[in-house]
Amino acid sequence: MPKSLEIIRKLAKKRDNKLLLFVVDGIGGVPDPKTNKTELEFANIPNIDELARNSICGMILPVSEGITPGSGLAHLSLFGYDPFEYEIGRGVLEAIGLGVNLGPNDLACRANFATIDYDRNIIVDRRAGRQSTEETSKLCDLLSKQISSIDGTKVRILPGKGHRFVVIFSQERLSDKISENDPQKNNFPPREIHPISSEGNYTARVVNSFLKACCEVIRNNRPANYVLLRGFSKLPKIPSMNEIYNIRSAAIATYPMYKGLARIVGMDVLDSGPSISDELSVLRSRLDEYDFFYLHIKETDSYGEDGEFIKKVRKIEEVDRYIPEIREMGFDVIALTGDHSTPAVLKSHSWHPVPICLYTKFAWKNNVKHFCEKECINGILGKIAAKDVLPLMLANAERLDKYGA
Amino acid sequence: MPKSLEIIRKLAKKRDNKLLLFVVDGIGGVPDPKTNKTELEFANIPNIDELARNSICGMILPVSEGITPGSGLAHLSLFGYDPFEYEIGRGVLEAIGLGVNLGPNDLACRANFATIDYDRNIIVDRRAGRQSTEETSKLCDLLSKQISSIDGTKVRILPGKGHRFVVIFSQERLSDKISENDPQKNNFPPREIHPISSEGNYTARVVNSFLKACCEVIRNNRPANYVLLRGFSKLPKIPSMNEIYNIRSAAIATYPMYKGLARIVGMDVLDSGPSISDELSVLRSRLDEYDFFYLHIKETDSYGEDGEFIKKVRKIEEVDRYIPEIREMGFDVIALTGDHSTPAVLKSHSWHPVPICLYTKFAWKNNVKHFCEKECINGILGKIAAKDVLPLMLANAERLDKYGA
Repeated sequence: MPKSLEIIRKLAKKRDNKLLLFVVDGIGGVPDPKTNKTELEFANIPNIDELARNSICGMILPVSEGITPGSGLAHLSLFGYDPFEYEIGRGVLEAIGLGVNLGPNDLACRANFATIDYDRNIIVDRRAGRQSTEETSKLCDLLSKQISSIDGTKVRILPGKGHRFVVIFSQERLSDKISENDPQKNNFPPREIHPISSEGNYTARVVNSFLKACCEVIRNNRPANYVLLRGFSKLPKIPSMNEIYNIRSAAIATYPMYKGLARIVGMDVLDSGPSISDELSVLRSRLDEYDFFYLHIKETDSYGEDGEFIKKVRKIEEVDRYIPEIREMGFDVIALTGDHSTPAVLKSHSWHPVPICLYTKFAWKNNVKHFCEKECINGILGKIAAKDVLPLMLANAERLDKYGA
Repeated sequence: MPKSLEIIRKLAKKRDNKLLLFVVDGIGGVPDPKTNKTELEFANIPNIDELARNSICGMILPVSEGITPGSGLAHLSLFGYDPFEYEIGRGVLEAIGLGVNLGPNDLACRANFATIDYDRNIIVDRRAGRQSTEETSKLCDLLSKQISSIDGTKVRILPGKGHRFVVIFSQERLSDKISENDPQKNNFPPREIHPISSEGNYTARVVNSFLKACCEVIRNNRPANYVLLRGFSKLPKIPSMNEIYNIRSAAIATYPMYKGLARIVGMDVLDSGPSISDELSVLRSRLDEYDFFYLHIKETDSYGEDGEFIKKVRKIEEVDRYIPEIREMGFDVIALTGDHSTPAVLKSHSWHPVPICLYTKFAWKNNVKHFCEKECINGILGKIAAKDVLPLMLANAERLDKYGA
C-alpha cells in the first residue's frame, strides 16, 4: 500500500454519520460553439446551485494535467487510489463491463474476431470486416459449445459489441505474464503468445491450445476465421475501501462496469432499477446499513460521447430535480462531481478538470453561485487531485485522527 | 536528503538581507455558527491587512488534503521538510515538549502509569484512573531516586500532565528498533518489549530491566502500580536549515516544544520572556546576528483548542498591533502564516489550508483586502504546499541561484 493510503488507514476511525459520493459521469464539458457555454453553464440547476452555495466548491483533476482517463482509472482516483499506483487490466475492465463477477482464479482478456490468410499466416483484417454484434454473438455461441475447457482450465466466451468479445480462463495456476498475439497492423503474421516470465509458462500453453482449438472451429468461416487476444489480466490486488477508510460502503449504479469497479474496491453492490428514482429508492431503503454510498449516473457521459449537448444538459437538469430528495436523507457530507469530463463538443472523455461541490458543515463561505467550470475553478477548494476527494470527505465527517503528535 | 532539498542546498547562496517566518499557531479557522465568520474574517487587523495588500497572499496545505497534522509535523513542513520523508518520533516530541535538550545518544519514550493485576498479569486500567499531575510527579520523583541507571545506561524520568511522563535512556548503543508494551486495550496482558531488528537487542534488554525495576518500586502502590512505554524514538537525522538554505537561523518561541523543534532543525534558540513584546525585543536586539528568524506565537492555537473563538480573535488582533514594530525592523521578506488551522468550532487542529501572506518587493499586484481564508484562497499565490514556503522566501530574498543552465 502506498504511504499516503497507509497513513489514511491508520488515521481513519468510525463515526455515526453518512457520506455520499455522487458521481454524475462525464459531467464536465467545454463550451459548445453554438451556445458558447459548457453543459453545466447552460443547464438550469437551481437545486445543485443551492447545494453548491452551502458547500466548498472547486475542481478535481482525475489523473494529472493533460491526461484523459478511462472510466476505470477515473473511478479508482475518485475512490482515493493513486491512479499511477493501481491499475485495472483491460481484460478485467471488459469482463466487468459485461457484468461478469470475476474471482481470484480468473484470467480475463479482450478478444476479437479477425481474418487470416492461413496459407501465408498473415492477418489480412484485424477486425474481420468489423462484423456485427449479432454475428459475433453467434460465433461466440459456437465456440462456447465446442470449447468449454482446456487442459483442466475452464473457458468462458462472452460476446461484446461489434467484432469484440471476452474470454475468461479459470484455474488457480493462471498468470497474466504472457504476451499478446495481435500484430497491431494488418498484413503481418499474428504474434506468438509466449510467457513474459516463468510464472506465465503454464498460461501460455493453455492460451495457445485455446487459440488452436478456436482455429479448428472457425477456420472455414468468413470473414471471421481467427481470434486475436490481448489485455490478459487478473483482478488487481487493491486494498478494500472498507479496510482503508474504516467504513461500510455500498454502491448504487446501473451499468455493469461501475458495479464491477465498486466490487473490486470492496463495496457492496446494491441492486437497483434503471432510473434515478429507482436508485434513490434503494439509497433511502439501505441508508441505515452503510456509512458511505457511491451513487452513479451514467447517461450524462453517454450523451457527451454521442455529441448530444442538449440531451446531456437535460440529464443534468433531471439530476438536479432529485437533489432535494437526496438532501432530505440527511447526509453529513456529500461530494457531487464527475469521474472525468465528457464534453459533447469532443464526443469523448477529456483531460479537463471536473467541477466538484463538497457539502459539509465545516464549509468556508462560498463564492460559487452557479455550479459550473468557470465558477468552480475559483472556488474555495481550489483544484485538487481526484484521489484527495475521499480523504477530504472523511476529514469533513471528522473520521480522520490527527497525523503525528 | 530528498532531491528537492538537495537542489535547494546547491542553489542557496548568501545575501545580506533578512527573512522572518512568523508563525501564528493555528491561525486558520472555519466559520463560527454565531458570527458566520472565521476567526480571521471576524478579526479587526488593519496592520496585517495593510501588510497583505503589499504582499503575495495564498493558502498553504500543511501535509495533504484532508490530513490534520500534529504540531511537529506541521512545523517540519513549514521549515521546508517533506512531512512524508521526515518524522519526529512521539517520545522525542514529548521530551522536547518538556524542555529536554536531547542529544544523539538519547532514546526517549512516552510513558504512563497504569494499573495491573499482577496475579493474572492483566492491565486493568491503562491510565491508572487518570491520576493527577501531582501524583504522577511524586511517583516520578520516587522512581528517579531508585533508578538512575540500568546496566550503564543513564535513565531520566520526567513527569508530564495527568498520568503521563517521559523516560529518557542515554547510552550510545541505544536503538529505537524495539516494540512497545502497551496492549492498547484494558483487560489484556502487557505486551513484551522485544527487538524489532537485531539493532534493538541491547536496548530491549535495558528497557525490560528498567520496567522490572519500576515494578519493584511501585508494585504496592495504588492505583498506579505499572508503567506503559511507547513511542521509543531518537533525534531524527534531519539536515540542518543552516546547511540546506545557507543561512544563519534563529528561533524565538516561548513554548518548549517549538524551541525543541527549532533545535532539531539546527536553529539557534534565543531566550525570551513570555509576551509578544518580549519576543520582539529579542528579535530586535539579535537582528544583526542572523539571516533568518522563526518567530512563534502559541496562544492562538491554545484558544482554538479550547473553543474560545473571541479569545482567539483578540489574540490575532494583539498580534496585529505589533506588525508596525516588526516592519520597522526592515525585513526584506516576511511570511506570516500558521502551521495549521485550529478552528475554535472544532476545538482541535484541522485539515484546512492556512492563509499566508508573503511580503516581498517582488509581489504582483494583489487582490486581498482583508487577510482571511476566503480572500487568500483566491490570492495571487494560490494554494501551495507548506514545504514550499521556505524556498519561496529564499527566492524572494534573491538567495536562490538559477537551476540548470
